[in-house]
Amino acid sequence: MQQAPDEPERSLAALLAPDILDLLETDPRSIAAETEELHAADLADVAELIDRALVPQLLAALPAPRAAAVLEYLGEELRTELLETMAPEQAAALIAAMTPDERADALEEMDEDVADEILEAIPERERAETERLLQYEADTAGGLMTTEFVSVPESQTVDEALATVRAIARAGRREAMQTIYVVDAQGVLTGVMSLRELLAAPEGTRVADNAWTEIVTVPADAHRETVVQLTSNYDLVAVPVVDADRRLLGVITVDDVIDVIQEEQTEDVQKFGGLEALEEPYLQVGFVELLKKRVPWLIVLFVGQMFTAAAMGFFEDSISAATVLALFVPLIISSGGNSGSQATSLIIRAMALQELRARDWTRVLLREAGMGLVLGALLGIVGALRIVVWQWAGFYPFGEHYGVLATTIGATVLGVVLFGTLTGAMLPFVLRKVGFDPASASAPLVATLVDVTGVVLYFSMALLLLRGTLL
Amino acid sequence: MQQAPDEPERSLAALLAPDILDLLETDPRSIAAETEELHAADLADVAELIDRALVPQLLAALPAPRAAAVLEYLGEELRTELLETMAPEQAAALIAAMTPDERADALEEMDEDVADEILEAIPERERAETERLLQYEADTAGGLMTTEFVSVPESQTVDEALATVRAIARAGRREAMQTIYVVDAQGVLTGVMSLRELLAAPEGTRVADNAWTEIVTVPADAHRETVVQLTSNYDLVAVPVVDADRRLLGVITVDDVIDVIQEEQTEDVQKFGGLEALEEPYLQVGFVELLKKRVPWLIVLFVGQMFTAAAMGFFEDSISAATVLALFVPLIISSGGNSGSQATSLIIRAMALQELRARDWTRVLLREAGMGLVLGALLGIVGALRIVVWQWAGFYPFGEHYGVLATTIGATVLGVVLFGTLTGAMLPFVLRKVGFDPASASAPLVATLVDVTGVVLYFSMALLLLRGTLL
Repeated sequence: MQQAPDEPERSLAALLAPDILDLLETDPRSIAAETEELHAADLADVAELIDRALVPQLLAALPAPRAAAVLEYLGEELRTELLETMAPEQAAALIAAMTPDERADALEEMDEDVADEILEAIPERERAETERLLQYEADTAGGLMTTEFVSVPESQTVDEALATVRAIARAGRREAMQTIYVVDAQGVLTGVMSLRELLAAPEGTRVADNAWTEIVTVPADAHRETVVQLTSNYDLVAVPVVDADRRLLGVITVDDVIDVIQEEQTEDVQKFGGLEALEEPYLQVGFVELLKKRVPWLIVLFVGQMFTAAAMGFFEDSISAATVLALFVPLIISSGGNSGSQATSLIIRAMALQELRARDWTRVLLREAGMGLVLGALLGIVGALRIVVWQWAGFYPFGEHYGVLATTIGATVLGVVLFGTLTGAMLPFVLRKVGFDPASASAPLVATLVDVTGVVLYFSMALLLLRGTLL
Repeated sequence: MQQAPDEPERSLAALLAPDILDLLETDPRSIAAETEELHAADLADVAELIDRALVPQLLAALPAPRAAAVLEYLGEELRTELLETMAPEQAAALIAAMTPDERADALEEMDEDVADEILEAIPERERAETERLLQYEADTAGGLMTTEFVSVPESQTVDEALATVRAIARAGRREAMQTIYVVDAQGVLTGVMSLRELLAAPEGTRVADNAWTEIVTVPADAHRETVVQLTSNYDLVAVPVVDADRRLLGVITVDDVIDVIQEEQTEDVQKFGGLEALEEPYLQVGFVELLKKRVPWLIVLFVGQMFTAAAMGFFEDSISAATVLALFVPLIISSGGNSGSQATSLIIRAMALQELRARDWTRVLLREAGMGLVLGALLGIVGALRIVVWQWAGFYPFGEHYGVLATTIGATVLGVVLFGTLTGAMLPFVLRKVGFDPASASAPLVATLVDVTGVVLYFSMALLLLRGTLL
């Protein structure tokens, strides 16, 4: 990530907050005008900074559309708390002024009863629209789309379409307008054109004759990952969502896609770290909830490691016969875990970017087998040398059989690294095959899987090579 | 990540490729018309599928701007190989037709001599433009921006501005046009307005009176992470890049920002996995190069683990006195590594999203201290119970002193998990403090750091509690 070196010590919001607090006390009416030029996101940051009790007053001091825009930029936690605590009429007025997709998201996060109460209080049109959106799963295209977009009938001329666009823009409504959608009488999507293409189109001609007919669309029930893929593959600023009959249902705008990308990535990193993904920013998650996300995996892994202990117990005689063997156990098992962690991170990321499909597993297997052999050989040599050098240098007396011991360590490391690499590379494919999220193949899980095998391999190798000498 | 369940088995490109290959043989001239409606990205996918020797012919069969667009969607590897091998004139013609930012990127990846040769061959205006862009570091705002954007002088009226926009759009040039930039006589950025706002603005008024004057800008030398932050915080579709005097230098479009987000996230995951970040997709990286990215960290960690072996050696007497102690070494050290991995993944992700600033370290320290204590206590109890239960159930005879042993294990696990959690949480802050990338705090690195301490803690605890009984 490389921390941005130009990270500002004080945010714009921090600079603005005092003045705005002043105005709230002295002359709230002036706030709207004073902050007119500010980006809603900055006002939202101010709201996050000031005393929560004052936020409703701040919002009340702004025109409804503006206040709604600020709400859309607020953190989920604060937004939900605000809407749940403020007077239902004020909440309803604000929610009604939000864009349909943000409105649905906001209501989804709220206490159901309060949400229903508010839904009842908002205008019929907005309510119907919102109830329709609420039917879609949050992680689908339908759950991301907004229903306010600009569509024009095929029959319209470029001039008529431009007039429509102008009217909507002038009405100050918040439709997604990066792309103009051309639909037939049944509402079936037949063409798309960017606003610039509409401007460039010759007056008098029909929009249909100027629009693109090869259209990238996504079904409403498509997983949001698919939306991300389409957006990034085709450099889209808006993705049209259609039903089974290609009727245009809504539009997903690129800013929401960016949010999805960052949420999915956060989930992946946290899962890879060995915990359940958090729904909120680290500092906003409650202590107990954070605990709940971390305990289960830790217990599972801990219990898993008990098998390692059991495996060690199985070889207790060897250990007591040659204590020196025990010294290298951490070195050996961790080399397997580390190489496994490398392989897993590569594969789950390549899967997330859809660089790897399920059918690529054989290719990966071969590649990582070679990789594991070379990596294992290198580390094995280092490990063996370590013993030889310590012996010669007199750092540690391994006794006359240090050569065989070195061989044992070297050979084991080779085997463990190879096994670790293959496990790490294949586990995501296996999880995916059985319907789990490949990203659940966390570094700690891979390490734990490899540890048991490492121990068994190590002592079996020892019994094989050291029998008659150390054992 | 939860891979898209609706992942298509055959891509559109796979379906198109055969027909296009046909046309290449029979009637290349018709390809342009036949593929007119296709998205350039799909043609690029076709190019990735077919025999590389045929790609230049495919590109030659398309009009220059179209072929250039296809080039922009090609994978770096194929694009570089193509441009380096095709006739310099053809390469120059294609490169000249690319957008300035893509042109600079393409040249940067090529062999320097070839790149210079091509630069010489492209028109003066494009060459100057490109040379200017090549001066910026690839990971800065300057390295991401395009120099083709729409700016209008303050003095212009809305009608004049619209006419300018129309003219540019009709000329079929590829300027970024989501946002119109208003500049004064010195080229200083004084206002921005979206194309829709320009359409909504009353005719006859000056653009300056309709544009926003609070403008989100980024300096040319800003790190690309800053560009990502601004884009996602403010839901921008284009970020203006300015020099020290706020003169407008270029514009970064959202599609390039999305690429950056995904690249940075890939780097973070790979670093967290314990290897150096790859520059190319997993399957495109050469075996040797992949090896080079993985070996260094593996060696470093392996050497690090030798200290664990040394630590074990220090306690060899205890081990030979009570072999049973050795059995739990993997269990104990891995519990530290796992809890550390959890903490690290949470912190580096929160840092990447700028949810955590450097100054938050104390807050995190306290929070994770509490977390480590609770997690450690829970795992410690499980660990101690395991011994007691095994003893009672007769699975394994720990002897009369199993109670003390259980206490030792439990107390050590508590300590190791606490230490692991704190190490994992603080390491990213430390790395950042000393100027490294916090994302380098990989799961394997944390585990290795914690292992040594775990061993020392374990056996010290044992010497303390088991003296006179097992030891």
